[in-house]
Amino acid sequence: MTFTDDAAATAEWVASYLGGVRDLPVLAQVEPGQIRAALPASPPEQGEPFQAVLADLDRVLLPGITHWNHPRFFAYFAISGSEPGILAELVAAALNVNAMLWRTSPAATELEEVAVDWLRQLLGLPDGLHGHIEDTASTSTLAALAAARQLRPGGAVLCSEHAHSSVDKAARLLGLPLEKVAVDAEFRLSPAALAGRLDGAAAVVATVGTTSTTSVDPVPEIAELCAEAGAWLHVDAAYAGSAAVCEEHRWALAGVERADSLVVNPHKWLLTPVDCSVLYTSRPDVLRDAFSLVPEYLRTGDEDVTNLMDYGPALGRRFRALKLWAVLRCYGRAGLQAVIREHVRLAHLFAGWLEAEPGWEIVAPYPFSVVCFRRRGSDEENETLLERVNATGEVFLSHTRLDGRYVLRLAVGNLRTSEGDVRRAWELLQSL
Amino acid sequence: MTFTDDAAATAEWVASYLGGVRDLPVLAQVEPGQIRAALPASPPEQGEPFQAVLADLDRVLLPGITHWNHPRFFAYFAISGSEPGILAELVAAALNVNAMLWRTSPAATELEEVAVDWLRQLLGLPDGLHGHIEDTASTSTLAALAAARQLRPGGAVLCSEHAHSSVDKAARLLGLPLEKVAVDAEFRLSPAALAGRLDGAAAVVATVGTTSTTSVDPVPEIAELCAEAGAWLHVDAAYAGSAAVCEEHRWALAGVERADSLVVNPHKWLLTPVDCSVLYTSRPDVLRDAFSLVPEYLRTGDEDVTNLMDYGPALGRRFRALKLWAVLRCYGRAGLQAVIREHVRLAHLFAGWLEAEPGWEIVAPYPFSVVCFRRRGSDEENETLLERVNATGEVFLSHTRLDGRYVLRLAVGNLRTSEGDVRRAWELLQSL
Repeated sequence: MTFTDDAAATAEWVASYLGGVRDLPVLAQVEPGQIRAALPASPPEQGEPFQAVLADLDRVLLPGITHWNHPRFFAYFAISGSEPGILAELVAAALNVNAMLWRTSPAATELEEVAVDWLRQLLGLPDGLHGHIEDTASTSTLAALAAARQLRPGGAVLCSEHAHSSVDKAARLLGLPLEKVAVDAEFRLSPAALAGRLDGAAAVVATVGTTSTTSVDPVPEIAELCAEAGAWLHVDAAYAGSAAVCEEHRWALAGVERADSLVVNPHKWLLTPVDCSVLYTSRPDVLRDAFSLVPEYLRTGDEDVTNLMDYGPALGRRFRALKLWAVLRCYGRAGLQAVIREHVRLAHLFAGWLEAEPGWEIVAPYPFSVVCFRRRGSDEENETLLERVNATGEVFLSHTRLDGRYVLRLAVGNLRTSEGDVRRAWELLQSL
Repeated sequence: MTFTDDAAATAEWVASYLGGVRDLPVLAQVEPGQIRAALPASPPEQGEPFQAVLADLDRVLLPGITHWNHPRFFAYFAISGSEPGILAELVAAALNVNAMLWRTSPAATELEEVAVDWLRQLLGLPDGLHGHIEDTASTSTLAALAAARQLRPGGAVLCSEHAHSSVDKAARLLGLPLEKVAVDAEFRLSPAALAGRLDGAAAVVATVGTTSTTSVDPVPEIAELCAEAGAWLHVDAAYAGSAAVCEEHRWALAGVERADSLVVNPHKWLLTPVDCSVLYTSRPDVLRDAFSLVPEYLRTGDEDVTNLMDYGPALGRRFRALKLWAVLRCYGRAGLQAVIREHVRLAHLFAGWLEAEPGWEIVAPYPFSVVCFRRRGSDEENETLLERVNATGEVFLSHTRLDGRYVLRLAVGNLRTSEGDVRRAWELLQSL
């Protein structure tokens, strides 16, 4: 087999997978160790044809895959690796460039600048923001807080109890104390609880779309407090930032024009395969101060160019811009808006069914495409219900805990999710 | 066009690119801003067909690509994204799983365990090491030093002047003091210079294959000093670790059985597309202590499973194991050995030409596939020579500085590199 044959076979495999993913169990139905046991314990001495890899993909691996691209994946934040993004990843792997320096692939650096600026425009963010791509929001937030630490070494990081665990992780790595701030009844950081605690603080992380409930912290009030205290304001809009491609969701980004940094993950709700997290900052010089460090073997004579390795923890950088650019081009503003609107419509439809049915309660506002709910009853009953629903393989939902209670979450975020898919989740929840 | 058509067209594009990359200028011949200027300043309102992306790839982007997959890319560490790795990336993008928890894709976690264990066996590393995949060695080293900090908070990190800049970057992020240790005449960390400086130190980073000269620090002696002082020993074998698939290069890993952690990058010299950095540790509990942090929304009832998010800074994790597994399978031990041996042979051939020709000097030992050399004369003459050679677009070499002198480097690492390619580099160096 030539590479051309292997490539064609793989492209066919992918088309067939995406076409048939709906019929697979969404949550892998395997026991721990089962996949490992099905694989040889040692590598082969002689090379095998790529066809053997494709065959084992079906035979061994697929049963152990939890299908994030399944239309009834409703857990965590549901995501889509859309077709343009998938094919762009193939091209990026073939080019295999390392976009650490401008000269190590000028097009990779400049396309990254263009793609993040296109995204900035789509989200209605201020002109002049510096943006670059990291792998995940964990890294973007780490980079932002490293910049904040440049200005206030040792200062605390404050965020709400509902901020993402990556904030804890970043503060721990950076050796900065972390302080949690109380939330209001709708799980939003309380500016009243924040006031008076910012003396000497390095940073506040405000969340636009918290992981549990997609609540939106009051960024304008938080920005005011940060400005008074001279603390860095980082906005984590990893999930909900993408909603701002629709004007009706722009309210959620109110105040971010005063933030020092902002993270949005196109790999969450903007159809880009993982990994693609965009970090914007109005203070790129501080970010560069935190990370720039140029050894002789990386010095070039190039002037007036951006070397993206200077803005984050990793030196090596994949050509991630290609997939973001491909997605933005192939969907366009209108296409992205249509997807976001449909997901929000489906989540709200589901919420309507819950509201109409006695025995169920919605336990948090649902401004976007995630609904937090529970069956009236004990935590144990809800936990058992979740396990039984997920064990069907027909849908996959996850949970969280709010005010001490066990809560189910339904997150819509896959391109292929239809009204029928959400209805099927509702039927299963009711019947089990 | 259907997705099947687009996928087939992209597969054809990739096959054609890889088949023709030899005929493209290896170093992009563009001015800063030129690619950006050729792209629309704003995203489209309506979606475009993927064919338009492919067309712009050729028309706009390729002239701005520095071709890391070109057979005459001799800069930095030359790399290859081999065909099985490229196609596996396509599959990984389509599956789009997030391997943060075992249950979010058991096969992704278990294949990662299998693939890094296969690699461990191929390199002759001790049984029982825990391994996992990070994006780059920057992150692997950051994770290793975060673990070291768990045991000695605030302790210094020591490494040679020739350690990679990622050690500086990691120490800076972690807030640990960094101390540089002198090297011997062959650019290896001097145990004599290290002795007596380890009191209270958190970690020593020893390098097996330094970036400038591929020198190998004396790990057995360093390990002995670390053991006496109770300091964590991290071995950076990002480049040269891969050479250990050949028995004749195993000497370079002597002593690593006493290391606490070790990083090897299959994306450097083991035919895997970026990004794929494997971090091994004999102390996984300490690594987990440094990073584990499980919020309610990520708790599962699964017992006795490995959740790989617990071993590094990022929560989200791509299915990187797939490409490593595909490469190891499709090359096998014999295939990988053949590639490494051919690269070493070519580098040594080049060194032989240099040695035989008056007017040139080799300025460092060349144990692997990188040769450091210069034309007898001034730094300026060598710098001008490098610029002129690279401007031809026929080859791409980079430089470093050794003992204060400007030095050229020729690194062999691409699958397609032939003797004729190395000879062409030598001809150009002599003629310009």
